[in-house]
Amino acid sequence: MGGDRAPESVVQGAIDAAAHFHDDLEVVLVGDENAIGCYLPATEAQRLGIEIVHTSESIGMGESATTSYRKKRDSSIAVGIKLLGERRVDAFVSAGNTGAVVTASLLGLGRIKGVHRPAILTIVPTHHGQCLMLDVGANSDTKPAHLYQFAIMGRVYAQSVSGIPEPTIGLLNIGEESSKGSDLAQAAFKMLTECPGNLNFVGNVEGRDILKGTVDVVVCDGFTGNVILKFAESVVGMVVGAIRSELKRSLKFKLGALLLKPVFARVRSRLNYEEYGGAPLLGVDGVVVICHGSSSAKAIRNALRVAASGAREGIDAKIAEELSRELLREEVAG
Amino acid sequence: MGGDRAPESVVQGAIDAAAHFHDDLEVVLVGDENAIGCYLPATEAQRLGIEIVHTSESIGMGESATTSYRKKRDSSIAVGIKLLGERRVDAFVSAGNTGAVVTASLLGLGRIKGVHRPAILTIVPTHHGQCLMLDVGANSDTKPAHLYQFAIMGRVYAQSVSGIPEPTIGLLNIGEESSKGSDLAQAAFKMLTECPGNLNFVGNVEGRDILKGTVDVVVCDGFTGNVILKFAESVVGMVVGAIRSELKRSLKFKLGALLLKPVFARVRSRLNYEEYGGAPLLGVDGVVVICHGSSSAKAIRNALRVAASGAREGIDAKIAEELSRELLREEVAG
Repeated sequence: MGGDRAPESVVQGAIDAAAHFHDDLEVVLVGDENAIGCYLPATEAQRLGIEIVHTSESIGMGESATTSYRKKRDSSIAVGIKLLGERRVDAFVSAGNTGAVVTASLLGLGRIKGVHRPAILTIVPTHHGQCLMLDVGANSDTKPAHLYQFAIMGRVYAQSVSGIPEPTIGLLNIGEESSKGSDLAQAAFKMLTECPGNLNFVGNVEGRDILKGTVDVVVCDGFTGNVILKFAESVVGMVVGAIRSELKRSLKFKLGALLLKPVFARVRSRLNYEEYGGAPLLGVDGVVVICHGSSSAKAIRNALRVAASGAREGIDAKIAEELSRELLREEVAG
Repeated sequence: MGGDRAPESVVQGAIDAAAHFHDDLEVVLVGDENAIGCYLPATEAQRLGIEIVHTSESIGMGESATTSYRKKRDSSIAVGIKLLGERRVDAFVSAGNTGAVVTASLLGLGRIKGVHRPAILTIVPTHHGQCLMLDVGANSDTKPAHLYQFAIMGRVYAQSVSGIPEPTIGLLNIGEESSKGSDLAQAAFKMLTECPGNLNFVGNVEGRDILKGTVDVVVCDGFTGNVILKFAESVVGMVVGAIRSELKRSLKFKLGALLLKPVFARVRSRLNYEEYGGAPLLGVDGVVVICHGSSSAKAIRNALRVAASGAREGIDAKIAEELSRELLREEVAG
């Protein structure tokens, strides 16, 4: 029921996923059954194997996260997380209020043992591939030890879901030298450098390194990560808009644009964040994927695939394992 | 002597500025006279009215700011700031080590009375115009009161140099509601809302609002601002690179690209940060403009024009005036 285009695009994305990825996943739709019924007739749901769990409430995009979760126990977010907590589903996807999903996950599922703070990971398309960035908004204030754990969680995700055997990890900072940056970045740099495990930490990276693909995983605080993500999402539209406004100036340009139409479409799609599906919330005890509020059906479809991969790879169990190893190391060292 | 392409592009930019803007400014080049002589013969310098002040040292891009400024008193940065401090020049422009320029300005010129911290302001091209953003890197750690003053300094700059009579001001944050964001952003929001003067503060803005041009001035901490700026600088190249790699795929695309060549050039130039010249360092007692280390001659030329505007408008005096009014208000209130 969440998101700016719900339930239409959410239901349509679920239908597409059920149809395209029927070997990989089964969809359970959580929400108002009447609203869902407008876009998915019961016979069609049955044919696609889509189960519907009715809920009577929904949390608005502007509502306070904690209050709404506590008060609206029959909201689609609260019920979906409950189903996941009871392991009646293997993963939960939402395009609703991000704060409410994070709060519901923290309160309804709990953190993985040893995790200080969860983090939202996003995939950024780069020059030659993609780069994972976290945290992009689960936390508004971050401590050095959180950044250190984000590196561990990002590494686990890169290895098990993205299939990068030895991911390189960089710390987002405002200079490359170890002495550069905020107190937070300097302290995190120290922790990451002194890490006893094999984190493959390559040092500080700057804003320009994200799109260059200098490293596989970029670790940053949730404030900076969220600002960058929202800025990045607005960039392609800006460049394409600037090109489009120039095209009007001559017939020759219009012809050129006609010839290049497939190129623009491919570039837009390659740099389109929707293609990469939702953003996994790492560090909570269960597989949760958060989608943009304005997610299209395509974005929802891809997010469902991301969620299925996360569940199949047991990303939460792998993070738990890696962190318990980390805790053991600390005990031995301390 | 600073910057990755010094002294060639710096000297060339100075020559261009002296030739194009001779009614508006006079150039004094500070650096090694032999190195300068390679690109600007003495007769040519005389014809253009360019004065050369010889220095024997230069500060490298990777050197520690404070140490290098203190030790290298005959570096181009230290001497340039000294000339400005003695008011033998009206403004100082450098493409050298940013940290060293900030340190030299703080130690050599001092802060304007009442200013907690200086801030670097940059101009970001938007959909329909431009937006001013500060701080983009003078500070790695920022306090609420600093952000509050950045708003005042940004307003003064927008009014006197950019010619916006009543600039709107937004606080960069990770949500629009007043309750959203880091402790820093929330505290700054409160200060800006309770401000007794007429700041025209419109509230929080998000990463996507920067390019949308939602507000005239975006206030942010130097860490986030610097990361965004460097990310933004890498974006146009990324999009153009993605388009270019697609063009190779067919002859039709190559023809389309040929027809659209002027369009790409115009878009690149419109979104090119170099067009907007350097970034003024506000809050220090004198007009200082910082350029990107990789500045081209064109960027230097435009930075010299930005510096001349700042000096002509007496931006430092206007900031001093606005802050003394602010201090008076605080005294009356307190």
